[in-house]
Amino acid sequence: MVKESAANGGLEWRINMPDGSSKILVPERVPRTRVCGGLQGFFMGFLSKFWGFILKAWNIGLNDPKKFIHCIKVGLALCLVSLFYYMRPLYHGVGGNAMWAVMTVVVVFEYTVGATLCKCVNRAIGTCLAGALGVGVHWIASKSGERFEPIILQFSVFLLAAAATFSRFIPSVKARFDYGAMIFILTFSLVSVSGYRVEKLFELAHHRLSTITIGTSICIITTMLFFPVWAGTELHNLIRNNMEKLADSLDGCLADYFSNEVNTDNIKNEARNKILLGYKCVLGSKATEESLANFARWEPAHGGFNFGHPWKEYLKVGASLRSCAYCIEALNGSINSDAKVPDVLKAHFSKFCLRLSSSSSAVMKELSAVISTMTKSTNIDLIVQEMNNAVEELQNALKSFSEQSTTSLTVSNGTGDAKASLALVQIVPLVTVSSLLMEIAARTEKIAEAVNSLANKAEFKVESDEKSKQSQNPKVLTR
Amino acid sequence: MVKESAANGGLEWRINMPDGSSKILVPERVPRTRVCGGLQGFFMGFLSKFWGFILKAWNIGLNDPKKFIHCIKVGLALCLVSLFYYMRPLYHGVGGNAMWAVMTVVVVFEYTVGATLCKCVNRAIGTCLAGALGVGVHWIASKSGERFEPIILQFSVFLLAAAATFSRFIPSVKARFDYGAMIFILTFSLVSVSGYRVEKLFELAHHRLSTITIGTSICIITTMLFFPVWAGTELHNLIRNNMEKLADSLDGCLADYFSNEVNTDNIKNEARNKILLGYKCVLGSKATEESLANFARWEPAHGGFNFGHPWKEYLKVGASLRSCAYCIEALNGSINSDAKVPDVLKAHFSKFCLRLSSSSSAVMKELSAVISTMTKSTNIDLIVQEMNNAVEELQNALKSFSEQSTTSLTVSNGTGDAKASLALVQIVPLVTVSSLLMEIAARTEKIAEAVNSLANKAEFKVESDEKSKQSQNPKVLTR
Repeated sequence: MVKESAANGGLEWRINMPDGSSKILVPERVPRTRVCGGLQGFFMGFLSKFWGFILKAWNIGLNDPKKFIHCIKVGLALCLVSLFYYMRPLYHGVGGNAMWAVMTVVVVFEYTVGATLCKCVNRAIGTCLAGALGVGVHWIASKSGERFEPIILQFSVFLLAAAATFSRFIPSVKARFDYGAMIFILTFSLVSVSGYRVEKLFELAHHRLSTITIGTSICIITTMLFFPVWAGTELHNLIRNNMEKLADSLDGCLADYFSNEVNTDNIKNEARNKILLGYKCVLGSKATEESLANFARWEPAHGGFNFGHPWKEYLKVGASLRSCAYCIEALNGSINSDAKVPDVLKAHFSKFCLRLSSSSSAVMKELSAVISTMTKSTNIDLIVQEMNNAVEELQNALKSFSEQSTTSLTVSNGTGDAKASLALVQIVPLVTVSSLLMEIAARTEKIAEAVNSLANKAEFKVESDEKSKQSQNPKVLTR
Repeated sequence: MVKESAANGGLEWRINMPDGSSKILVPERVPRTRVCGGLQGFFMGFLSKFWGFILKAWNIGLNDPKKFIHCIKVGLALCLVSLFYYMRPLYHGVGGNAMWAVMTVVVVFEYTVGATLCKCVNRAIGTCLAGALGVGVHWIASKSGERFEPIILQFSVFLLAAAATFSRFIPSVKARFDYGAMIFILTFSLVSVSGYRVEKLFELAHHRLSTITIGTSICIITTMLFFPVWAGTELHNLIRNNMEKLADSLDGCLADYFSNEVNTDNIKNEARNKILLGYKCVLGSKATEESLANFARWEPAHGGFNFGHPWKEYLKVGASLRSCAYCIEALNGSINSDAKVPDVLKAHFSKFCLRLSSSSSAVMKELSAVISTMTKSTNIDLIVQEMNNAVEELQNALKSFSEQSTTSLTVSNGTGDAKASLALVQIVPLVTVSSLLMEIAARTEKIAEAVNSLANKAEFKVESDEKSKQSQNPKVLTR
């Protein structure tokens, strides 16, 4: 039997045994503290994780303050549109449907001006088209008797929804009108189906159109007037930065290969690695480029860009950059392979390889300056010619190497036969690096062609005496 | 003066000159036919363009009938949800707000089950969270006097909308809860702002929740019961197909290089080019893989995949495939370069190169069979070993080449010096191809490791006597 008794002001459990003796149960104090500790640990773990998450998020914003500004813009647009609820005349003006204006703002507001405009236009066109069609179908259905009405309505919803859904699979439609197709389905179903109950279809259409107009105008005004983020400028800068990253990557890669010192400074190593792996950004930027180019087409003239700016040309430059990046990735692979090249050979070739890589990256840097300043370069032909000379020199070096090796390298190696064998096998990594460098040079020329075509179509200025002024401040235009 | 007179039943224009004479104006008949012709031409051009567009769209569907089925499913789901409008008890049950159910279906229905589930869950969670928060904020605001009410409401909308918008920039949130964050902003603004007018907030919340439940249930049922398209299966098949494409590309590339015959059959050429350029699909599939893996995590067990299937491992396999594709792209570049290799040299090396490439592609094909049948292969170590042997043989061939060249190639070339020079310069493309092949072999081994890790984590079956049965029908499981 267990009995509870209050002794000394505390709670006590006592077991009375059948033989008359009794035993006090002492509560184990350990579990309580253990539970507390466990809870505390869990809580602290959660807090530290949460704190880490917040810090990471904060850093994302610090690295690109435009993201903070975007958030503020969204809040601002929502506050503006919600004023409709507080001002009675406005509220009643749209038949109490101010909800649709709020919805429009939330759904349509995007990071770049182009994306916002694209969604606005899509929403407006989709709504109008589907609304008109919906009213038409509804009218036909109402004329065909009560029995056929739901059948016609249902069938039309099925057919048009299926067709519009299918159109979203077509690449050209998907790129421009994906959102519009969705809004088309939405509005058509709502109009043609709800029309069965709500008799005042035209009034509804009027309200919906005016709320959408209000919502989109607020979005467009907010996005274009307060620190606008233009998709075109973003694309322009992305391509220029990618070009610079590629040039730095190439330089870093080769410098790393031909310098024999091992760097033990961790911070330096990290920074170097970041530069070295810059080409990886280029490898994965296709989707971003395409969507930016798509949105840029919707944007009005801004900065140095006119309305009909040839955004597609940027995609071609991007593709040529990527094809060059593939080669740099292969180069990086063969540089990091285990095969070792004797230092004598490396020293012999380093001059030619480094000259070729630095002249290739010089071409890329000049091209990035062309894009950055939107000014045609008069030097570019010269620099490309220099690169081609470097290619020829490397080829000659390979050609003359076997002759040289028989003379100059004899010192370090044995008989003639062994020498020849050394020349071929041990030089394999060097030959690979050289021929990848030549391939990179060829692809760099393709980049130059693409940039040239962009410069012609976008009617870049011709470099003049002003050049010195601009080259001091090359980023003024686009930052 | 111009006078119109009806003569002989026809219309006639006559100019009466001041001198009394008159002149009949004969209408020029040419422009009318010209305008007609122009209009007809424009119309025909438009029609033929439109017809071409329709044909292209139709082919997209024919190539992947699942797209047709998806469209039918969307139509079906919309018809189902629109029944709410026709059945009075249902319609009144949700307070006449059946519109939200239709909206939910249109917005939430996606191509794959995973994407649909993801959006459903996001919509539900976002709505509940924002609804609760909105009601809370609204309650606080209503307690703080009429003057502060709009200020508190506006400020809370601004703050929460900005915070939720910012969360969409964080990669981990964006991948899973992007849509949820948007719905959160939407619902919160609607509830906290509209609450200022509409007094029956709880009833509204109830209706909104029930309509969303109805919409999402219809979506989930339609997407899962009628020909479901699982994101997991799509990812699985994509990776397997990419692997096969890569193997075919590699084989085709090398075969093309070492066969000297020029193919003039255009149809054959096109088919061959399609195989050759298969690696390009792999280069650009990163975004697709990532979104599929993201959606696959939301899916319940289906086919051979359990709920906790290691979808992330597929991404690793995909990354290793891509790194191999970069090398194949560089290989393709150096194969298509202008540098010609003497046929004697080519013939000498073709055996080794072809053996290496075919053993690499054999590894890939075996790995794709592993993924396809979800059965661990007992052969794979053997095949990888064979590939490594082929690498060694190629290396030996390069090693022994210089010795051989002095003997066997003397016939075709002049003096010893010229011979050595030939050996190095003319062999450059071959050396590059060989060393890229070796790099590809190394990366193929990385693919094997990734697939192995996948097989372990996903607990693939161990190959047994049943193998013969399965290998006859390797695609039953996944098609």
